[in-house]
Amino acid sequence: MNSEFTIHDILNFEQRYRAAFINSIGGFKSLVLIGTKSKEGQSNLAIFNSFFHVGASPPLFGFIVRPDSVERHTLSNILETGVMTINHVREDFFKEAHQTSARYPMGISEFKAAKLTEEYKSDYFAPFVKESAVKIAGELKQQIVVTENGTTIILAQMKFVSLPENCLMPDGFVDLEKAGTITCSGLDSYHKTEKLARLSYAKIDKLPDEF
Amino acid sequence: MNSEFTIHDILNFEQRYRAAFINSIGGFKSLVLIGTKSKEGQSNLAIFNSFFHVGASPPLFGFIVRPDSVERHTLSNILETGVMTINHVREDFFKEAHQTSARYPMGISEFKAAKLTEEYKSDYFAPFVKESAVKIAGELKQQIVVTENGTTIILAQMKFVSLPENCLMPDGFVDLEKAGTITCSGLDSYHKTEKLARLSYAKIDKLPDEF
Repeated sequence: MNSEFTIHDILNFEQRYRAAFINSIGGFKSLVLIGTKSKEGQSNLAIFNSFFHVGASPPLFGFIVRPDSVERHTLSNILETGVMTINHVREDFFKEAHQTSARYPMGISEFKAAKLTEEYKSDYFAPFVKESAVKIAGELKQQIVVTENGTTIILAQMKFVSLPENCLMPDGFVDLEKAGTITCSGLDSYHKTEKLARLSYAKIDKLPDEF
Repeated sequence: MNSEFTIHDILNFEQRYRAAFINSIGGFKSLVLIGTKSKEGQSNLAIFNSFFHVGASPPLFGFIVRPDSVERHTLSNILETGVMTINHVREDFFKEAHQTSARYPMGISEFKAAKLTEEYKSDYFAPFVKESAVKIAGELKQQIVVTENGTTIILAQMKFVSLPENCLMPDGFVDLEKAGTITCSGLDSYHKTEKLARLSYAKIDKLPDEF
């Protein structure tokens, strides 16, 4: 049996119940740690589950920042310096990744507080997470304010990418299970994955094949 | 060993190789079927992997549409009628879901072509997918054009939600594994999930607990 809820039911949910419900109803999500640094050199690390693909040419991605949350330091650093890093989360440090969402005061780096290691590459100003297998350097391209709720969409271009060489398949596909990347649902649920299949490019005259 | 690629390397990748690479490098993604209908009554169904959470109050979500792709019918129907449905994909019909990405000509409904069933609820104009366990009715709120590549971000508000009643936990969390929802990576790789843990709200003075 399915339960059905109208927008009126949902708006009447208790606030934390509604947040848990709406955050989990959309499906499994990309889970990344975003690393930034202020002009003054204070590093910052925050967990995000709203990363999305925007385009391959040029390579663009986006994510949502809620300005009234712990994410505001990430936003101010990005607006100040124009750069950030995207770091995948693995099973062996998902608790540390979750811990970065605690409300640490200014002056405390979530890297140190959550026992994750800052790493610098190719003179990039923003810090990477050493423990991550897949890492992306991003450069701010567009800031969009969502009029409905005041959140910000950050659109950024990939500047370079680092990944375990055995995860890159001959056709350009990145095998994220081999890289140990995990996914999440809701605000606090973490999941590993098991591949069902890759499917051939869909054609109108036949069903896709597994490969 | 990690392989590293600069933006110059990436822009020099062969086009399909680059699409596979950039589409998979970001992590596992929300996988949904978006159902729409033209004013003339032609239904349309398309698979999307860019669904993202925008806010809980009001309940907002977003997704990316590439206007030069098979997704253009989805976009024109949404702009024409203001409504769409979001339907989770389950293991038992992921090949049919993938098949909706074939370039069917105007006048052919992907529901019929991919052997999925149109379902109508509460007089909502847009069609749901009967085979999906979790379904969301959405109403267009904001259309944003990404200047970098001409893609469109659609922001929409949830109008109602339908989900199996045994998947809704006492705190509002929706257990997507119980609902059979799967995830994807890249353009063509499908994955089921296995829960690692839910973690308690992060506090600065202690590490999170599993529950």
